Amino acid sequence: MTPVVVSTEGPLRQAVAAARRKGNQVGFVPTMGALHAGHVSLIEKARAVNGFVVASIFVNPTQFGPNEDFTRYPRPLERDLDLCAGVDLVFVPDVATMYPPGFQTFVQVKDLSNILEGASRPGHFQGVATVVLKLLNLVQPDRAYFGQKDAQQVRVIQQMVRDLNVPVEIAVCPTVREPDGLALSSRNQYLDVNQRREATALNQALDKAEEMIREGERNAGVIERAMVDHIAATPGAVLDYAIAVDRETLKPASPFRGTILLALAVKFGATRLIDNRIVEC
Amino acid sequence: MTPVVVSTEGPLRQAVAAARRKGNQVGFVPTMGALHAGHVSLIEKARAVNGFVVASIFVNPTQFGPNEDFTRYPRPLERDLDLCAGVDLVFVPDVATMYPPGFQTFVQVKDLSNILEGASRPGHFQGVATVVLKLLNLVQPDRAYFGQKDAQQVRVIQQMVRDLNVPVEIAVCPTVREPDGLALSSRNQYLDVNQRREATALNQALDKAEEMIREGERNAGVIERAMVDHIAATPGAVLDYAIAVDRETLKPASPFRGTILLALAVKFGATRLIDNRIVEC
Repeated sequence: MTPVVVSTEGPLRQAVAAARRKGNQVGFVPTMGALHAGHVSLIEKARAVNGFVVASIFVNPTQFGPNEDFTRYPRPLERDLDLCAGVDLVFVPDVATMYPPGFQTFVQVKDLSNILEGASRPGHFQGVATVVLKLLNLVQPDRAYFGQKDAQQVRVIQQMVRDLNVPVEIAVCPTVREPDGLALSSRNQYLDVNQRREATALNQALDKAEEMIREGERNAGVIERAMVDHIAATPGAVLDYAIAVDRETLKPASPFRGTILLALAVKFGATRLIDNRIVEC
Repeated sequence: MTPVVVSTEGPLRQAVAAARRKGNQVGFVPTMGALHAGHVSLIEKARAVNGFVVASIFVNPTQFGPNEDFTRYPRPLERDLDLCAGVDLVFVPDVATMYPPGFQTFVQVKDLSNILEGASRPGHFQGVATVVLKLLNLVQPDRAYFGQKDAQQVRVIQQMVRDLNVPVEIAVCPTVREPDGLALSSRNQYLDVNQRREATALNQALDKAEEMIREGERNAGVIERAMVDHIAATPGAVLDYAIAVDRETLKPASPFRGTILLALAVKFGATRLIDNRIVEC
């Protein structure tokens, strides 16, 4: 199946409305393109539950900081469309369609946006929340699909949808990994051979932290220290943060129990990778 | 007709969905209660065009400043429900329903929110934009109705709906006035007898400014000065602002032509009144 590709609001709304009139439920997979098996797993999940599946490909400028990789972010559109074979409709707007002259409205999910990724990337989650809300309003899906790989993004979007009463179900899908454990990311292609080999340290540090919790450790500082030490012992890796927090608030879990999010961000040269693990205890 | 009254999300969504299944379009009139003939005119407009009409009554705490009249804002619920006789469904949520624990998401319409009313009332339009978006997401109307009396609010909501691709038509209805020209407002009841008499100065100042434009005046400063002088000559009146600006941007129109918004804010004691006029030139 070759998906229909549209780039503007009118044809998008018409196509979705036509699918609804035929009785379909609508699933939506928003992406920034540079698709990999993680995105394909989201499409497959959407395909399994919804009669009509929409994907979007839009490298959203408002979620990149001034010194980030917006201009060099990969945009392999033809390959992306091939990977959208399981999709009915692909929405590929240009920047002027999403942010026309005079655009000035932003969504802020306050407490969740300024910590962790948000501390390293000011304005990032305001850009994410705003573009996701725009896309949800354009597509009006029954369900939207996001990867657990971006754990904080998931929480920001869940909270936004709850707080603003957006009528959509947010489906969170497991992180897809390379055989050696590296979480798939469009940014992995920036890594050189040595960095690529050492990048497995993120997943290994999470393995170690998860094992500590399973063996009874309940001191967040001790768990975080183990992740810090593992990254510190990795050549070429520079730690940004390593945390063991409450999954809902992204703040210290006290007492340390319930659903714990282990998460870390590590730089290899200019490339910043993130990964995470959820552990019940 | 006595409207159905609901106070929570589930029954609201069910009632609207049932009306839609019967083929109705949905009109929505959001209010803070203390209804007057201005609100009733919005209900009548909604009634004329939509098969199903929803009104909401919610005194929204997030649009009041710390020193404003949130607690003493009038809440005559029984009388309000009588005035909703033309409505099918009235949504009357409590504060905890709209802002549950953990609530943290806000919508900012940046350029339009910090000037005029926003300069005098920091955070006001963030509160307005956020609650209106929540209500639009809860009701999902085809059309929502607002009064031109709150000219800046109208622009903030129009801009938010455009920027966030909210699928709703915003209908703006003319200001309703007392026989002596005072614009109807829930806050007029705060005025004492003398203040009530002098409050016609707002409409008179707008009359004078409109006449100047019709007679060819194109200097915004001269027009604004005439409004300032008129209010200065009014006993008990303290001017906040008087402006002649571009209706779309709320900024100086240069050249001075097209759709001009004349607007002013005046205090009588603790009571702050606003009024405006749109003039094509």
